Amino acid sequence: MITRDECEALDASDPLSPLRHHFELPPDVIYLDGNSLGPPPRVVRHRVREVLDGWASDLISGWWKHDWIGLPARVGHRLEPLLGAEPGSVICCDSTSVNLFKVVDAACRLVEGDVLTDSGNFPTDLYVLGTVAERHQRRLLVVDPVDLPDAITDSIGVVAATHVDFRTGRRHDLPLLTRLAHQTGSLVIWDLSHSAGAMQVGLAKNQVDLAVGCGYKYLNGGPGAPAFVYVSPRWQATLANPITGWFGHADPFEFSGEFVPAEGVERMKVGSPDVISMVALDAALSIWEGVDLGLVREKSVALTSLFIELIDQELGGQLEILTPRSPEVRGSQVSVRQAEAKTLTEELLRRGVICDFRPPDIARFGFSPLFTRYFDVWEAVDRVRSLLAV
Amino acid sequence: MITRDECEALDASDPLSPLRHHFELPPDVIYLDGNSLGPPPRVVRHRVREVLDGWASDLISGWWKHDWIGLPARVGHRLEPLLGAEPGSVICCDSTSVNLFKVVDAACRLVEGDVLTDSGNFPTDLYVLGTVAERHQRRLLVVDPVDLPDAITDSIGVVAATHVDFRTGRRHDLPLLTRLAHQTGSLVIWDLSHSAGAMQVGLAKNQVDLAVGCGYKYLNGGPGAPAFVYVSPRWQATLANPITGWFGHADPFEFSGEFVPAEGVERMKVGSPDVISMVALDAALSIWEGVDLGLVREKSVALTSLFIELIDQELGGQLEILTPRSPEVRGSQVSVRQAEAKTLTEELLRRGVICDFRPPDIARFGFSPLFTRYFDVWEAVDRVRSLLAV
Repeated sequence: MITRDECEALDASDPLSPLRHHFELPPDVIYLDGNSLGPPPRVVRHRVREVLDGWASDLISGWWKHDWIGLPARVGHRLEPLLGAEPGSVICCDSTSVNLFKVVDAACRLVEGDVLTDSGNFPTDLYVLGTVAERHQRRLLVVDPVDLPDAITDSIGVVAATHVDFRTGRRHDLPLLTRLAHQTGSLVIWDLSHSAGAMQVGLAKNQVDLAVGCGYKYLNGGPGAPAFVYVSPRWQATLANPITGWFGHADPFEFSGEFVPAEGVERMKVGSPDVISMVALDAALSIWEGVDLGLVREKSVALTSLFIELIDQELGGQLEILTPRSPEVRGSQVSVRQAEAKTLTEELLRRGVICDFRPPDIARFGFSPLFTRYFDVWEAVDRVRSLLAV
Repeated sequence: MITRDECEALDASDPLSPLRHHFELPPDVIYLDGNSLGPPPRVVRHRVREVLDGWASDLISGWWKHDWIGLPARVGHRLEPLLGAEPGSVICCDSTSVNLFKVVDAACRLVEGDVLTDSGNFPTDLYVLGTVAERHQRRLLVVDPVDLPDAITDSIGVVAATHVDFRTGRRHDLPLLTRLAHQTGSLVIWDLSHSAGAMQVGLAKNQVDLAVGCGYKYLNGGPGAPAFVYVSPRWQATLANPITGWFGHADPFEFSGEFVPAEGVERMKVGSPDVISMVALDAALSIWEGVDLGLVREKSVALTSLFIELIDQELGGQLEILTPRSPEVRGSQVSVRQAEAKTLTEELLRRGVICDFRPPDIARFGFSPLFTRYFDVWEAVDRVRSLLAV
């Protein structure tokens, strides 16, 4: 039997617990939806005020005086250690969907063969993969998530998947799938939206080709924050961004009529960076300095494991746990299936526990290791229990 | 001879002069670069603080409680009267470059024929047009701006141009070119980056097909603010956004694996809206309520005419005026050509006049009718005169 006291003791000895103070969080809320929208790090307000001041005082000169021009690369640099990426391999720009379009299209121009993904992929990924595959006269093969390794055959050119499944919380074996893809000469594209900031990703170590991801989940950059693109140094010189905007040009301020792509990952940029939002994300990322991602993953596993154990202990068979019980195959969320999942999440919201509903019958509980307490896990399960006991 | 007193008298009788108080402007600066980056409307700070408060207090629920979900359409509605566009024809999303890619690609799927533009178009437009034309196996024809009307022949399928030339300030005859394009069965795409907020555009009246534009010039939305797309109601049901993201789906929160485009212009959206920046733009646009665009254009013409007259009067032939002298063919900027234009703009900056340099030898002076005073025009020319007299 796990007790409430034990959960509080875990918080007391948690080396990451001081990080919770970086966040603005409503006092009486248990926020288990940081996997959908992270809460604001306190430093964001200050940095946003600063950028508004800079805009007012320096006007057009702000682009150089405050190096707003350099924001995409600067935010990219902050992301590199979080993704295990090489220096100069990540750039911040556009939305995840737009970035995915760019890299899938670019990948299809580098290699022949069909595009492979799994049915658990996020809708935007399925849509973009479908559209781009069709344009390149490739087939899009969509298999069950567990069948992905076996589906990587010689006819495949591009393997594109989301590292952690947004519905089930199941985590793909990124090193294995990347290796299998390379064995058949395929390129691999990872969508890291549900893993960046919750675990190590090891892009360089695993020789990932291309990746994209979002800034507003575990990275807490704000609603609809700018996204990122990773391009392996191996592909930086050959990859062609299909959206040839002036910020992807080698020298935008030459205003040349001829498109010459920028060196390296900068060529994946398109238009002017959205400064106010990008500064907010930059500020949010600053709280990661010195944070040990090993500890982050350790706590993530501990939180999700605790939640699963408590659901079993307190609720017996009342909730079906959809997320794999083996931590190896799990992201930082736990999804439960229940016929009344929609009502359940609404009632929990009324009782101060914020999680979310995904159709048709899934309630998702996200555990953002930077601010979630073991006590929150206890409380959440306790409130689910009292709700279902009625 | 125009005198300084006369300029001050013009300000005193200017019906738009109260609007200047909406802006945060440094006290000792003459800002003639609002055509590049508009200054912050005061209301922006308030609205940005509000959105940060909403994020902190409502977290994920903010998307519905504050209708962040509806921001792209709401900001689009604010833009419609400024563009003379039909209700429900404008949406705010992405950058101008990304939006241009979407509409040029979509247009090429609707019609056969070559793509036509002019050499005065903005670099990003030239790059995007080139890339998209090539992908659709069309030729991109680039002619001199003045030759555009004659170049619209039966072999053309898409005519794409920027309404006001960023270098020269020359304005295309939008009604004429649109009519000529339609006579040969072409679609027309206007980039309104240098006209939106400085003049009437009359998208509906002129039966324009597609348009894009930026939020950070005369619309003052902030550095790199989100951009917009216009789709004529005639094309809204058939136009296909090539970047099929979940926010362009008919029901994003159904999380369906099948892409069904949203009704109307909403299908041009891609990813989640960048809320903080889009709220800043929304706030900036609120100052336009009740502003008569006829007066705005009238003042714009008066300011640019005054500048040209004063340059002639005070500087004789020392500066070549590149911008057409006929107001009909002019946007809201005046460009002058001078061998030492780069030094000139730098020296002016030191003397409190902000304008900008465009290679190789152009100094641009922008006149944003909402905050520029006739007095500013006098002062700017006076400082140019004293500089060149040395």
